[in-house]
Amino acid sequence: MNRPANDRLLRALRREPVDATPVWIMRQAGRYLPEYRAVRERAGSFLKLCTTPELACEVTLQPVRRYPLDAAIVFSDILTVPDAMGLGLHFVEGEGPRFARPVRTDADIDALGVPDPETELRYVLDAVRLARAGLAGSVPLIGFAGSPWTLATYMVEGGSSRDFAVIKRLLFDRPELLHRLLDVLARAVASYLHAQIAAGAQAIMVFDTWGGVLDPASYRAFSLAYMERIVAALPREYDGHRIPVILFTKGGAQHLDAIAASGCDAAGLDWTADLAAARARVGGRIALQGNLDPAVLYAAPERIRAGVAGVLEAYGAGSGHVFNLGHGIHADTDPERVAVLVDAVHELSAPYHA
Amino acid sequence: MNRPANDRLLRALRREPVDATPVWIMRQAGRYLPEYRAVRERAGSFLKLCTTPELACEVTLQPVRRYPLDAAIVFSDILTVPDAMGLGLHFVEGEGPRFARPVRTDADIDALGVPDPETELRYVLDAVRLARAGLAGSVPLIGFAGSPWTLATYMVEGGSSRDFAVIKRLLFDRPELLHRLLDVLARAVASYLHAQIAAGAQAIMVFDTWGGVLDPASYRAFSLAYMERIVAALPREYDGHRIPVILFTKGGAQHLDAIAASGCDAAGLDWTADLAAARARVGGRIALQGNLDPAVLYAAPERIRAGVAGVLEAYGAGSGHVFNLGHGIHADTDPERVAVLVDAVHELSAPYHA
Repeated sequence: MNRPANDRLLRALRREPVDATPVWIMRQAGRYLPEYRAVRERAGSFLKLCTTPELACEVTLQPVRRYPLDAAIVFSDILTVPDAMGLGLHFVEGEGPRFARPVRTDADIDALGVPDPETELRYVLDAVRLARAGLAGSVPLIGFAGSPWTLATYMVEGGSSRDFAVIKRLLFDRPELLHRLLDVLARAVASYLHAQIAAGAQAIMVFDTWGGVLDPASYRAFSLAYMERIVAALPREYDGHRIPVILFTKGGAQHLDAIAASGCDAAGLDWTADLAAARARVGGRIALQGNLDPAVLYAAPERIRAGVAGVLEAYGAGSGHVFNLGHGIHADTDPERVAVLVDAVHELSAPYHA
Repeated sequence: MNRPANDRLLRALRREPVDATPVWIMRQAGRYLPEYRAVRERAGSFLKLCTTPELACEVTLQPVRRYPLDAAIVFSDILTVPDAMGLGLHFVEGEGPRFARPVRTDADIDALGVPDPETELRYVLDAVRLARAGLAGSVPLIGFAGSPWTLATYMVEGGSSRDFAVIKRLLFDRPELLHRLLDVLARAVASYLHAQIAAGAQAIMVFDTWGGVLDPASYRAFSLAYMERIVAALPREYDGHRIPVILFTKGGAQHLDAIAASGCDAAGLDWTADLAAARARVGGRIALQGNLDPAVLYAAPERIRAGVAGVLEAYGAGSGHVFNLGHGIHADTDPERVAVLVDAVHELSAPYHA
């Protein structure tokens, strides 16, 4: 059975009528859930959790069991792709990801190849297959990857960065070399996402976490252009069903016109975007996903409901909206508040679809 | 003598004709200059440098001696104001500013008072007076302060932050308490800037470094509203001359319409903003300042000139533009490249003012 019993997400991404606005939450399988922390402890490390399909499947399903969410997203990390390219990913407690072998020289970049997903990233595809089976047709499963630009920032900087000085030096002083890196990454990500679709992913999201640190011309040339290539390379239908693609550039609201013309089905918006203005700008060309500030979940239930109401009102009547936070949920969020949010979205959105 | 010999900056901020686009650089008095590092070493600490008027004056004048810049900005730090309010500012090497006594409770906030600039911040005003005398009417001197919202983030978080979880919890759960903090900060900043003008500052810039982390409604209510109060509280003329005010919200390009209506004379733009679109949006109501990515200074001279040309072309013909970087200059910038940039601005902008 290919059509999930709850197909609100897929319908909203196609801008078809729905009975209520679908909702899922970035990082919904994560540290704010005690059942996640228990599995994470059992795994021993974050990477072990990512690379053990049974455990990754288990945490993928946890939030869907706890809340009436309209989608699951496979539990993984965007940096599995550069890890499969040989960079040696590890996590330093409290400091985030690090690569043992950052990529900086011509030789480093020319040595990179496109990983074979079914061998080098098989653990992710197995997690997709297990999660899809575990969902048993209840809600759709989202697959994902990092954007080429975002992956490149980690690969060149060697980890997280505040000012992106190393990769920007490359961008402004050796643009042709950076283009070579982005080219191989675009091919790797397209191949990887294609494999996730074949393994059962029913929608795709590309996380461009760091596209927003670029000036507008550089964003189009070094980030969006490569996401466009990925969108064009993916099958628009698989097994008789359209596979929608969501592009999420954090801090990218200024580029919505260009994003809407990229061939994607939807744009994710962070909480700094004006959702009403965004809808007016895309003018029905694509769907929109977002965009409540995750910090609203620190507030009392009635304030959370007011925050949800504000986002729904900003989007207005009709389909084409997927409710989400504007960023991943904070690890110290009270799980009870998430229940308030999910219920509020379904309850308060119904009138907009009457 | 109140009118500087080089009054390009003041004319551009008033949108009056100029012979070339004026240029200054955020953090132009800073670590990238060897002569700055020598004085900083002599001072013993960053805070000692800030609080010793003769040394602060010396580093204020250094970049103006080295480059044909069109303005000086007094060397100081935005956190001197909360320090004067009793929070105990110190700097942890490699980690940035910290407050010994962060502000979080009703009692903490109610205990805050407006410092008397001529006593508690006299060292800044003395630096302004010395720098103004040292410039000897060559170029105008800019005074500055942090925005109330930006100062509040440091005061509540206790230092720098990545996700602003503590202050956003306050914003969403106790908005009235945050408004009380912002109210006293707006009064403190207005009083401080007024004193800088009386001491000789000929233009004012308000740094809203963290306004861009807010959703649009919160930005207007918790950041812009308090900057508007400051603009309204400042004398628009002093000693017969108009004192222009520049508001700089990093990541604030989406809010330009509201900023243009705030009463300010100019908006600073970071490098992610589309300068041509920004000019079209403000439609001559205010001047614009910015916005080259500081990382362009890592590139070869011909690429720096191309970057400058791109910004000048984006703004187009006519006055109302102050060239600047979109963010503070990086500490590892080669000073020779800064000379390339300043010369390129003057040379390449002349045709736009013919």
